Amino acid sequence: MELQEARGQLMKLQEQMSAYDHAMGLISYDGDTVAPRGTAANRAHALGILSEITYQLSTGRETVALLEYLDENRAELTEKEQRMVFLLLKDIRFMQKIPLEEYVAYEKLIVESQDVWRRAKAENDFASFAPYLEKIVAARIRFAGYAAPDTDPYDYWLNEFEPGLNREKCDQFFSRLRQRLVPLIQACGEKAAVPDACLHGDFPEEQQEKLAKWVMQAMGLPLDHVGLAVTEHPFTTSLGSHLDERITTHYYREDVSSSLYSVIHEGGHALYDTGSDDSLAYTVLDGGVSMGIHESQSRFYENILGRSAAFCRFLFPKLQELFPEQLLPYGWQDFYRAVNRVQPSLIRTEADEVTYSLHVMVRYELEKRLMAGALAVADLPAEWNRMYKEYLGVDVPDDTRGVLQDSHWSFGAIGYFPSYALGSAYGAQFLKKMRETVDVDACLERGDFAPINEWNREQIWQYGSLYTPAQVLERVLGAPFDPDVYLDYLEGKCREIYGL
Amino acid sequence: MELQEARGQLMKLQEQMSAYDHAMGLISYDGDTVAPRGTAANRAHALGILSEITYQLSTGRETVALLEYLDENRAELTEKEQRMVFLLLKDIRFMQKIPLEEYVAYEKLIVESQDVWRRAKAENDFASFAPYLEKIVAARIRFAGYAAPDTDPYDYWLNEFEPGLNREKCDQFFSRLRQRLVPLIQACGEKAAVPDACLHGDFPEEQQEKLAKWVMQAMGLPLDHVGLAVTEHPFTTSLGSHLDERITTHYYREDVSSSLYSVIHEGGHALYDTGSDDSLAYTVLDGGVSMGIHESQSRFYENILGRSAAFCRFLFPKLQELFPEQLLPYGWQDFYRAVNRVQPSLIRTEADEVTYSLHVMVRYELEKRLMAGALAVADLPAEWNRMYKEYLGVDVPDDTRGVLQDSHWSFGAIGYFPSYALGSAYGAQFLKKMRETVDVDACLERGDFAPINEWNREQIWQYGSLYTPAQVLERVLGAPFDPDVYLDYLEGKCREIYGL
Repeated sequence: MELQEARGQLMKLQEQMSAYDHAMGLISYDGDTVAPRGTAANRAHALGILSEITYQLSTGRETVALLEYLDENRAELTEKEQRMVFLLLKDIRFMQKIPLEEYVAYEKLIVESQDVWRRAKAENDFASFAPYLEKIVAARIRFAGYAAPDTDPYDYWLNEFEPGLNREKCDQFFSRLRQRLVPLIQACGEKAAVPDACLHGDFPEEQQEKLAKWVMQAMGLPLDHVGLAVTEHPFTTSLGSHLDERITTHYYREDVSSSLYSVIHEGGHALYDTGSDDSLAYTVLDGGVSMGIHESQSRFYENILGRSAAFCRFLFPKLQELFPEQLLPYGWQDFYRAVNRVQPSLIRTEADEVTYSLHVMVRYELEKRLMAGALAVADLPAEWNRMYKEYLGVDVPDDTRGVLQDSHWSFGAIGYFPSYALGSAYGAQFLKKMRETVDVDACLERGDFAPINEWNREQIWQYGSLYTPAQVLERVLGAPFDPDVYLDYLEGKCREIYGL
Repeated sequence: MELQEARGQLMKLQEQMSAYDHAMGLISYDGDTVAPRGTAANRAHALGILSEITYQLSTGRETVALLEYLDENRAELTEKEQRMVFLLLKDIRFMQKIPLEEYVAYEKLIVESQDVWRRAKAENDFASFAPYLEKIVAARIRFAGYAAPDTDPYDYWLNEFEPGLNREKCDQFFSRLRQRLVPLIQACGEKAAVPDACLHGDFPEEQQEKLAKWVMQAMGLPLDHVGLAVTEHPFTTSLGSHLDERITTHYYREDVSSSLYSVIHEGGHALYDTGSDDSLAYTVLDGGVSMGIHESQSRFYENILGRSAAFCRFLFPKLQELFPEQLLPYGWQDFYRAVNRVQPSLIRTEADEVTYSLHVMVRYELEKRLMAGALAVADLPAEWNRMYKEYLGVDVPDDTRGVLQDSHWSFGAIGYFPSYALGSAYGAQFLKKMRETVDVDACLERGDFAPINEWNREQIWQYGSLYTPAQVLERVLGAPFDPDVYLDYLEGKCREIYGL
């Protein structure tokens, strides 16, 4: 084979894969947003067949020969091509070890289980979801065993979601968080509770939708390439390339901040994805590199920017305009304090920044035990409730607001949750660095996200998946990861809100 | 090859095709409904690749060998299998004659041209659409030439949309319609105009959406399998099988009947598709057999049932409930007369039943000349306007309400329009037959579609594409097609409304 021809084939292969990704991603997105209720089996049928075809495309003899040839000649490839070959071979090495029937059966299982989870959550019926989750846990353990027989299965998946991560690092990270967060939360709890009445009332969906679209524009999302839809559990997905990005939200009529901050969160994901350099479109380098870096962006926009005093001051007049009856009696400081109120609670996605990581820790500890075979799925709800009492001091009234609240396990994402806490911590370190050259507060006060977005694009987004998470951190920070920067940031917030 | 094995492969092939149909259909549907405005090129990229892959799947050596083997052994196949092999081979014979590059380029062209048409219609800019339409006409002529060099290109496509149809039959059919319609329209025009003020006013979209969902339920659509979305030009599509059907509509705030009757029209398509026997799912026999039979169902529900006195009596109280300010001053007879007012007009989809076929005839005559190379695309707007003046006596104020009004040409459907008139005529004959055993008016007055739907399912829907249009007509009617039944029906309507 000629090297030049092989390089062309490398691009063609990725274009084909991106077309299948587009198709399969859209089928899932459709299922999560507008598809009629009774169509899950039909969708599973199509996805089962397409995943079998893509399996054969990715692991077929021709593909493997192509990539191995390119890998042998990697010295002559560009940096981007080297990374493409590395990432593709990594996937192939994994896929080659999974028997085709198991892979296809798993893909179908995942489609069905999401449907079952949706219903189970709506009806507070963990028992109906349990058999699916059992199969998912078993498959994830088995797949890790095929892929890396000498690695602990949970370590394997942690590293998949965030390359470089394992239980040891998580344990260290979470233990440091706990050391400083537990007394911090306690200190806040001893102060007078922050009122949040301004967030609760009657906020019609149509108006919330207007707010969502306004904030998407304000934060600088390229709206010709980013759509908004309604779903049960908000998520973001790219279709084929960073040129078509979809974010989703869920409106609660009685609560104005839930959808608002979910839109900013998903908008952060979408900014990261759509910020890829256009030359990366239809390659495996397109879009974000890892869940940790992804969450560092989404939670950066949601919390570090979105819940800052400067942004709340900019945002509040718009809120008053959209919901005059509810909000005219209040000032922006009331809103700022309310969305930063520290209050142990039931729902992760609604949690304040300070208690948030405790929600993640509960999931981490449970996943660790599930994946070690030390906890049965049947015992999960009771353990969940026990740990929420221990970590957050709250009583879980039902599984809908407990173990069934998150969609992740229903689509097999076991090992994802730690990225949320890790990403939050990365974000605080990015902020510190950004402040060296950008007057972040001044930008936010006038609602000008351009300099902030430009910094992120320059430093992070444009590269897509070209660099590993460790390389991204090293390039951006020039310093090692340090969770204490995040903890300092959280303490600063608490000082402002609670006068600690 | 063993026959038994080949039969299994026949089913597997169709399942694969249905998965690709699902994916590609959904990508198009997404583009027509919720996709962000700037994503057409990204969509075209994915569709270009997937259509190349499906081309190779359908025309590949293995597929051809399989189908030819089965065809040689067709005596041992079931009736259904014989029909599958026939339909698949027919497609292959066509595809084999189209060069791959031309096929792929055409698929991309179609995606782009729909986007261009949408913009051109919005901006009354025919010039921007013209180069795309020129390429489409040229491709359709060329493809017909590849497929059937001895057949006239327009005849070829008429027969594709409605097997058995050609220019000669169209000419006869339309000439008979004209003979009786022109004096009928004239006679109505000499009577006092029917007031339609009750249809015009302020009908908020949210309420129209409620009406759409109510009428979908009333007409017996299986709502767990049929979704509703908003688009520019309403259409219906199946995703993968009849188990997931999507209809679309467009709300005009100042007009209550437009979206209502488009929903009933598309609902008729969806009833036909979803009425396929479940055993046909994921095969080429799933869903309706031809455009003519399809329109016989959609226009049957829209007009013959939907604009009947009996249904208007049932429907009107619901309309009053949803739009009390607008409609409380009126009675159901006002509504019935208004939606049956005979009035030559500009927009086909908004036309009354009597003048409707004239809209189709204009398109038929223009298509005939375009496909014969006797009319240049550049001259189309002027010719359109001239013929609207001649046939309908109306002046076309702009191309948005003229030659750009329909989406069909933008996706290559040249030869489709005659099916609308033909289907309408089939429908009148079906009604006559149905009345022999079903008291249609009594059902409609109480809003009970079950006996009507059951008759259609029994007679037509369940068979999907098992029988040709001619066989369907023969089986259902036991008599030859007779456009005078349709003309009698229209005259009867005019007698009621205008007291002719």
